[in-house]
Amino acid sequence: MKSHKWVYSFGSNTKSEIKDSAEMKNILGGKGAGLAEMSALGLPVPPGFTITTGICSYYYANKKSYPKELKKLVNEALKKVEKTTKHIFGDKKNPLLVSVRSGARASMPGMMDTVLNLGLNDETVKGLAEQSKDARFAYDSYRRFIQMYSNVVLEIGHDLFEAVIDDVKGAIGAEQDTELKAEDWQDVIEEYFKIVKDMTGKPFPQNVHEQLWGAIGAVFDSWTNARAITYRKLNDIPGDWGTAVNVQAMVFGNLGEDCCTGVAFTRNPSTGENVFYGEYLVNAQGEDVVAGIRTPWNLTVKEKKEQGSSSPAMEELMPKVFKQLCDVRKKLEAHYKDMQDIEFTVQQGKLYMLQTRNGKRTAAAALKIAVDLVKNKIITKHQAVKRIDPKSLDQLLHPALDSKAEKKLLAKGLPASPGAASGKVVFNADDAKNLADKGLKVILCRTETSPEDIHGMNAAQGIVTTRGGMTSHAAVVARGMGRACVAGAGDLRIDYNKKEMTAKGVTIKAGDVITIDGGKGEIMLGEIPTVQPKLSHDFATVMGWADKIRKLKVRANAETPTDAATAIGFGAEGIGLCRTEHMFFDADRITSMREMIVSEDEKSRCAALAKLEPMQKKDFVELFKIMGRLPVTIRLLDPPLHEFLPQKESEIASVAAAAKVSPDTIRRRMQQLHEANPMLGHRGCRLGISYPEIYKMQARAIFLACIEMHKLGKQVVPEIMIPLVSVKKELDILKAMIEETAKEISKKYGVKLKYTIGTMIELPRAAIRAGEIAESAEFFSFGTNDLTQTTFGLSRDDAAMFLHDYYQADIFECDPFASIDEDGVGELIGIAVERGRKTSPKIKLGICGEHGGDPASVKFCHRAGLDYVSCSPYRIPIARLAAAHAMIEELEAAKKT
Amino acid sequence: MKSHKWVYSFGSNTKSEIKDSAEMKNILGGKGAGLAEMSALGLPVPPGFTITTGICSYYYANKKSYPKELKKLVNEALKKVEKTTKHIFGDKKNPLLVSVRSGARASMPGMMDTVLNLGLNDETVKGLAEQSKDARFAYDSYRRFIQMYSNVVLEIGHDLFEAVIDDVKGAIGAEQDTELKAEDWQDVIEEYFKIVKDMTGKPFPQNVHEQLWGAIGAVFDSWTNARAITYRKLNDIPGDWGTAVNVQAMVFGNLGEDCCTGVAFTRNPSTGENVFYGEYLVNAQGEDVVAGIRTPWNLTVKEKKEQGSSSPAMEELMPKVFKQLCDVRKKLEAHYKDMQDIEFTVQQGKLYMLQTRNGKRTAAAALKIAVDLVKNKIITKHQAVKRIDPKSLDQLLHPALDSKAEKKLLAKGLPASPGAASGKVVFNADDAKNLADKGLKVILCRTETSPEDIHGMNAAQGIVTTRGGMTSHAAVVARGMGRACVAGAGDLRIDYNKKEMTAKGVTIKAGDVITIDGGKGEIMLGEIPTVQPKLSHDFATVMGWADKIRKLKVRANAETPTDAATAIGFGAEGIGLCRTEHMFFDADRITSMREMIVSEDEKSRCAALAKLEPMQKKDFVELFKIMGRLPVTIRLLDPPLHEFLPQKESEIASVAAAAKVSPDTIRRRMQQLHEANPMLGHRGCRLGISYPEIYKMQARAIFLACIEMHKLGKQVVPEIMIPLVSVKKELDILKAMIEETAKEISKKYGVKLKYTIGTMIELPRAAIRAGEIAESAEFFSFGTNDLTQTTFGLSRDDAAMFLHDYYQADIFECDPFASIDEDGVGELIGIAVERGRKTSPKIKLGICGEHGGDPASVKFCHRAGLDYVSCSPYRIPIARLAAAHAMIEELEAAKKT
Repeated sequence: MKSHKWVYSFGSNTKSEIKDSAEMKNILGGKGAGLAEMSALGLPVPPGFTITTGICSYYYANKKSYPKELKKLVNEALKKVEKTTKHIFGDKKNPLLVSVRSGARASMPGMMDTVLNLGLNDETVKGLAEQSKDARFAYDSYRRFIQMYSNVVLEIGHDLFEAVIDDVKGAIGAEQDTELKAEDWQDVIEEYFKIVKDMTGKPFPQNVHEQLWGAIGAVFDSWTNARAITYRKLNDIPGDWGTAVNVQAMVFGNLGEDCCTGVAFTRNPSTGENVFYGEYLVNAQGEDVVAGIRTPWNLTVKEKKEQGSSSPAMEELMPKVFKQLCDVRKKLEAHYKDMQDIEFTVQQGKLYMLQTRNGKRTAAAALKIAVDLVKNKIITKHQAVKRIDPKSLDQLLHPALDSKAEKKLLAKGLPASPGAASGKVVFNADDAKNLADKGLKVILCRTETSPEDIHGMNAAQGIVTTRGGMTSHAAVVARGMGRACVAGAGDLRIDYNKKEMTAKGVTIKAGDVITIDGGKGEIMLGEIPTVQPKLSHDFATVMGWADKIRKLKVRANAETPTDAATAIGFGAEGIGLCRTEHMFFDADRITSMREMIVSEDEKSRCAALAKLEPMQKKDFVELFKIMGRLPVTIRLLDPPLHEFLPQKESEIASVAAAAKVSPDTIRRRMQQLHEANPMLGHRGCRLGISYPEIYKMQARAIFLACIEMHKLGKQVVPEIMIPLVSVKKELDILKAMIEETAKEISKKYGVKLKYTIGTMIELPRAAIRAGEIAESAEFFSFGTNDLTQTTFGLSRDDAAMFLHDYYQADIFECDPFASIDEDGVGELIGIAVERGRKTSPKIKLGICGEHGGDPASVKFCHRAGLDYVSCSPYRIPIARLAAAHAMIEELEAAKKT
Repeated sequence: MKSHKWVYSFGSNTKSEIKDSAEMKNILGGKGAGLAEMSALGLPVPPGFTITTGICSYYYANKKSYPKELKKLVNEALKKVEKTTKHIFGDKKNPLLVSVRSGARASMPGMMDTVLNLGLNDETVKGLAEQSKDARFAYDSYRRFIQMYSNVVLEIGHDLFEAVIDDVKGAIGAEQDTELKAEDWQDVIEEYFKIVKDMTGKPFPQNVHEQLWGAIGAVFDSWTNARAITYRKLNDIPGDWGTAVNVQAMVFGNLGEDCCTGVAFTRNPSTGENVFYGEYLVNAQGEDVVAGIRTPWNLTVKEKKEQGSSSPAMEELMPKVFKQLCDVRKKLEAHYKDMQDIEFTVQQGKLYMLQTRNGKRTAAAALKIAVDLVKNKIITKHQAVKRIDPKSLDQLLHPALDSKAEKKLLAKGLPASPGAASGKVVFNADDAKNLADKGLKVILCRTETSPEDIHGMNAAQGIVTTRGGMTSHAAVVARGMGRACVAGAGDLRIDYNKKEMTAKGVTIKAGDVITIDGGKGEIMLGEIPTVQPKLSHDFATVMGWADKIRKLKVRANAETPTDAATAIGFGAEGIGLCRTEHMFFDADRITSMREMIVSEDEKSRCAALAKLEPMQKKDFVELFKIMGRLPVTIRLLDPPLHEFLPQKESEIASVAAAAKVSPDTIRRRMQQLHEANPMLGHRGCRLGISYPEIYKMQARAIFLACIEMHKLGKQVVPEIMIPLVSVKKELDILKAMIEETAKEISKKYGVKLKYTIGTMIELPRAAIRAGEIAESAEFFSFGTNDLTQTTFGLSRDDAAMFLHDYYQADIFECDPFASIDEDGVGELIGIAVERGRKTSPKIKLGICGEHGGDPASVKFCHRAGLDYVSCSPYRIPIARLAAAHAMIEELEAAKKT
């Protein structure tokens, strides 16, 4: 960003200098933009200034240095703040204190560093004591500042400082920090100075300007700390956005009982209900709420009652200021046309707004808010659709706890993030990550969470904390990630050393299974069965809007009647991938399948196939009945045969008996079928070429199912799909065979059969030769799982071994098996689309890999001009919504040009 | 081909109607063109006509029918033959007999069907008997015709007919066919007619025109018989070329002692020596020589003496005709400017030429002939180079028998095709194919070979026959294929039933190992050691010409000093691929390598690497010393680590001891390293990313070797190659690491290091992203083995399981791992070349897969604009020659446009 203006002031009766909200966010970061906008709206914002994200880019591009003119600009902005607040930075009598905070374009809660109370030193602290008439407050603020600054800027761990406090408390026999007096804090400060000297070899900086620039540098540095990088990765935030730095006059919520600090949402972020919703702490600093160290009180009486709290609501305790806050709520929603997440502080009865941003919310809340805003004509349907993150729908689509199941309630907490989750209890983030990597489901249980726990929270199915409220770190992050969370479950006591927790006399050890219901705030023993969730009317409304917008069709990958029915329920417009091999895994079929595989000649193979044929036919009939007139794409046998081979001796024996051969013959055949790289082996259409009788059986089963449907008066037009084609001739040979089979059956039953034959494009060669393959194929379905494997030369089964190293080294931004690699795999798809359509302009094009349910990949498919995506039933709504987003983006781009 | 002229006459004082030799071959086929050209040269050719290859195309394109006007054209041509020969087709008194033979553009010896003596029936046979005054001859000819026609046209097996002869011989107590009289042959004919009636339900056709069209159709049909298809596949002859049909007046070499038939080469086809070289049989038909049923006599006295034959040479027996033949030899060589393979018949003292074509020859002969022709200014150097088939050089480059080794001579035969070969004895083609498919070396031993044996001859290392001469089927085909062959080893007796053969009282059973020396005609017991062959001066001469022509450089894939020295000897211009992992397989190194692999942490990994480093360094120093100033490309560790893991318990124990851990730890680690698809797993640069210390060690070893060379006063500029890159960043990270290592070493030793860093392009994604990868890579080396695997999704290790099905179904024309798939893999290479050069116009481009030694692939690399190919040392001359061919083709194409 090339902006010659590096520093923007706010809150000093300044009007916003930038008009466009988006541009403002880019330049000032989210927090800075919020402050500027609130300031422009005339809301009470403590004055301050924002150093732009451009400086962050400059800082990293120039070996962590600043433009020459920056110092002058900062000093000028500081002067403005001094003028407004009538305090002077570094002044012994009337000191100005400031906070220094990061603020990126996208909200990254708790990810980056903050320094409060900056401007205090051995001299100014005296001024503060005098002005506030509260020496205890002044020295507590000073020690807080030293501790925070030392941690953030000088990189000294918290523990050393906390130990000092414990020592002093011990010496005077105090239990709580609040029992410490000014002198005690002075003793603490003395010890703090020693720690700083010991650790850094230098005294703690007394020069307030040195303090300021130290903090500014630390904020910029924090942009590339490990937890910020992890957070960006999890949330697809580009690393080159950078952060801004906000320097703002301090206001104090901890100057007495007429002070407080709070966090609020303009609507309920869990349900979306249009009620004011928040928490506050009397006589506290803002960080105390967010960090979840003290459990806060409710903002409103309604909320207080609902949560059965006995502490007074702000509405009761500070009715006047609460009313002001309600006005602010209205103004902000009217301005932003969206639910806001705000932070405020009340200093001696005066309200100050410290932050506003679009609030994170659950998917259910997002839907309700969007629908409400459309109803009230505040936003359009397109805007509403665009506001819903497709990925977030995942939360709604997964099973909920079965209300009829028996539950052993262990403890209750706050319903911090909805969803049901079961898993083994773990007590730290690393354990969560390790067990999850092994495929286990875990529930992360912590007294409180911090940004260091992000990887564990992401790996866990659900999160439990014993402290902290609805707006605590755990709650906010869990909602953003779509993890179930129960926060502040005060009955639970966690013992990290013993790796166990207790509640109501029950002891839960690490590894024990619990279930949590984040929508109700309940923690239960053992695993509780789940049921299909009921989708809200809001969901249906928004999805209806999305369906009207989108161009891309959405189909399901499904083969069982259950999956097909689920898919239809979620709005599938057909089956894009019916994996016939999945139909063979049933206990009553696997033996025949195995018998077929171990056959050494065509005759015995055909005998085994003859047993499988009626089963396959029955499957297809069932599927056709469920799908009605919707298209069904049936893929013929694909995986290497040895995937079906028996493992256990008893299985070998039963296959041997069925095939009437000796177990040794089976073992020898298994040996023969062994492959060095099965993924690149004898599979897909290669099986059809080597053992035509297999594909013939499958084609017969499909056509016989069509005949049966015909008898029921329904015409079915199956789409028969040949997998793993790399050479056109493979398709030609198998197509001719299927057509022959169709003719035979058509003749025998006197029924005209309609069907299409197409192929998977899942090998680079197929993509390259798509022009000629399209001469024979009536449709292409991109098998992006295999295409990704072969394009990267990377086995999905083995990648886990080193993918971690690849994320670490920033080689992969995300898992290429989860989101399409547009630069490589995407270009091959583009080539295939272009060449396929050139040969056959009306060829039907779809995708049926796992990517079909990934929003970014769905958008890619839209841009690539595909006709449909196919994904697992539970991801269909996600795909529908992502397809609508893609269309909206296309329309917006068209408008711009 | 759209030619309205469908039939061309020859031998009736006609001048050739087509001027261009190549066009003539395309239209008339090789045999037809030869007859037309000889006829135009005024040589004695029995008159006849050729039905063009265009009719063959028409025939297959029109459901095996002919153009309407063809019948008329054939009749007119027949009239001309009648006029010239003064015989009349179908005439009772003065019958014209004709032969009907196939003749494709490329010679396909014995591959297609022929009918002789056509025009005989119950009436004309009497005329023939009267005219020839030899009833025995006439009825023998008639029964030959019936037998051949029944076999070729009516598809009745030979056996039934042979049995009849045996019966008749038995009845009259005859041993030899020659003992049968006219009446006996008449009895035979009666029985033949019964067989035909039984088998076809119809009498044998008496109408000579019906006979003629039946034979013509059979020739066209034979174009698509199984052995013709196999032959075309082996020799890269396109299936759409088609065959012509030659109808020619019969001449008889079996009309008495002043008759003979023979086959000759204008030069020695084994050595290339400029001597007349051939064989003949007195009183015999042409097919008798080719089929190898009787062992023929030598043409010249010189040859007779050299082979120690006691039978008279033609030079002695028929000096006058021999002199005529010598004139023909001169005329033909002068006309064709190449060695000719000719067939002739002498009927009652009069010479007739039946065929001329460029003779098949050994590689050594091809070189000598080409050099001789250049010396005599008959052809240019370009023409000489172009005449040598690069693949044929393989024969010269492989080891010959060690003359010092002890040999147990079993039998002697004719030196039919040079080369040494050892293998297990097999007695039929199918066994040869089956064992060879399992990787065994076999020697195919047959009484005589026939076109049905082609697949077995191709699969065998060498061929032995007990009958037949230097121009027998076995000899000709073996020379063409480059297989060693000893023909007519009369001392050997083969018993097909017992599957054994005997010579000098020794019995060799199937599976016993023998060695043959095709250059000397010796068959020996057991396996004889071999030595490096000495390359002839002619070889050096032609290679020198090729080197001057070619643009593409040729490097070697080599890592051992032996390989490197061999490569230099064969003219390598550098090492294109030094596979460092091959250096670790030595017994004294593998334990350290394994120790490194089983290490679970960096520290113990580094300890093991420290042991390997000096060994690697020593290897590089040795390599650099051998290669002198030639470039050396060193690929860092590539294969999956578990390839190095111990297999046996004793190995596990020794690795455990070296690594100071328990064998169980080793086993567990092996389990961890197991991969489902190792080819797509944790290998190549992925190892370098996960375990940077491995690549660092290798880089250090390379640079320390450079330092050591520097001390010796030599500057080495190694090319360091990173394998399996799919994302530019992989290369960036590893490049930075290598550069860092170079800096450290450079600083430590005060020596400036020069080196380049490049990458393999061996994954489709790397090809697609070549533009950006070229920003970091100083060279690309196409790893076409892996690129083929991933482009096709086909594992080289597993493909054998079904490749046979793919050849059978005509899906693959050849093994894509042997010859580059230009349409798929080739296009990806083209994309990478274009994008790489666009970013970095001077980027060095090479190929280092197995394809680097395949002539077709080398030509592709030339056309794709690569700088070099790299192949195994023994294939270097092949690549050099192929590169020259590519250049010549480019020049010729440029001339045409």
